[in-house]
Amino acid sequence: MSEDSTSPHGPHGYSGDKAALLSRLRRIEGQVRGLQRMVDEDTYCIDVLTQISAAKSALQAVAVGLLEDHLAHCVVDAARAGDPSAKVKEASDAIARLIKS
Amino acid sequence: MSEDSTSPHGPHGYSGDKAALLSRLRRIEGQVRGLQRMVDEDTYCIDVLTQISAAKSALQAVAVGLLEDHLAHCVVDAARAGDPSAKVKEASDAIARLIKS
Amino acid sequence: MSEDSTSPHGPHGYSGDKAALLSRLRRIEGQVRGLQRMVDEDTYCIDVLTQISAAKSALQAVAVGLLEDHLAHCVVDAARAGDPSAKVKEASDAIARLIKS
Amino acid sequence: MSEDSTSPHGPHGYSGDKAALLSRLRRIEGQVRGLQRMVDEDTYCIDVLTQISAAKSALQAVAVGLLEDHLAHCVVDAARAGDPSAKVKEASDAIARLIKS
Repeated sequence: MSEDSTSPHGPHGYSGDKAALLSRLRRIEGQVRGLQRMVDEDTYCIDVLTQISAAKSALQAVAVGLLEDHLAHCVVDAARAGDPSAKVKEASDAIARLIKS
Repeated sequence: MSEDSTSPHGPHGYSGDKAALLSRLRRIEGQVRGLQRMVDEDTYCIDVLTQISAAKSALQAVAVGLLEDHLAHCVVDAARAGDPSAKVKEASDAIARLIKS
Repeated sequence: MSEDSTSPHGPHGYSGDKAALLSRLRRIEGQVRGLQRMVDEDTYCIDVLTQISAAKSALQAVAVGLLEDHLAHCVVDAARAGDPSAKVKEASDAIARLIKS
Repeated sequence: MSEDSTSPHGPHGYSGDKAALLSRLRRIEGQVRGLQRMVDEDTYCIDVLTQISAAKSALQAVAVGLLEDHLAHCVVDAARAGDPSAKVKEASDAIARLIKS
């Protein structure tokens, strides 16, 4: 990752996996549309809840991957460039938000 | 809820709020499409992560609402009709899945 | 559960499993003491984090069991006695808190 | 953090805050003992659940702090020393475990 991955407009840690990331997000979009169909068809609430947990877990897996990319590129680049504390704090706050959601 | 809300094909606890529930799910679908745009436009990973947490929280709020409806209708109806243990177990398993996702 | 399990001073849904519940909580207390030993002995942070996740999961399992007991006794008893909506709302709020913690 | 914070036996990122960390863990131990008293005294299950969520949140806050220390020391030191990928992967796996607990 030669370019400065800390610039707001990338490339970023995830830029290398962009196609895979977009495909996973499209799948999650499909899962949420599927939830609408289940509700529309009066599916039993427990089954709807099971699919909501699945969609949440899929979002979570994307987030953990993005965090790993952020650590491996933005935090590491900042560490080598000088003071990484702002990048570390950003990552830590993102982790705290993710755990609560 | 006079009808038997324990039948797999409803009406269910959420049937009364169907329009509101569908509208919330469409909004979440929009959030996930927004995530795709952010990735496509090389948005900074921390900002993408913030929006993923927001989409997860929105899904979670829908799930907690569905659970409350399930308790108030399916579990309560089953309690009044006889043995609610199967409905209680279903709810408890759904809660455990939701907490882990 | 003949007595009124909705009274603040029990018996409650969990009263039947009290000994098992207390034993699990004592084990979790031991896990937290174990965390103190690990920190005291300068154990590698990732290993401390692994044990924190284990203690959190143990607390979570206790909570899911307590919720199931609450549904099976307090909510069901209230449903049979008249209006269960307050008990259902309490359970739903407890679920929401648990998911965020 | 001049010493090599990647050595299994410290000092580690948290070594500087050891006293504060130990004090927080002792408080959480006290919270878990408090849960035992509540159960022993047949406290209403919703109130026990509220305290379990509080103890989980306290453990979570300790974990997020430890993760931030790990990033700021172990990952940053490894980045400056050479290949941080193993440390990044460890952090990412710890985050995934924490989110699920």
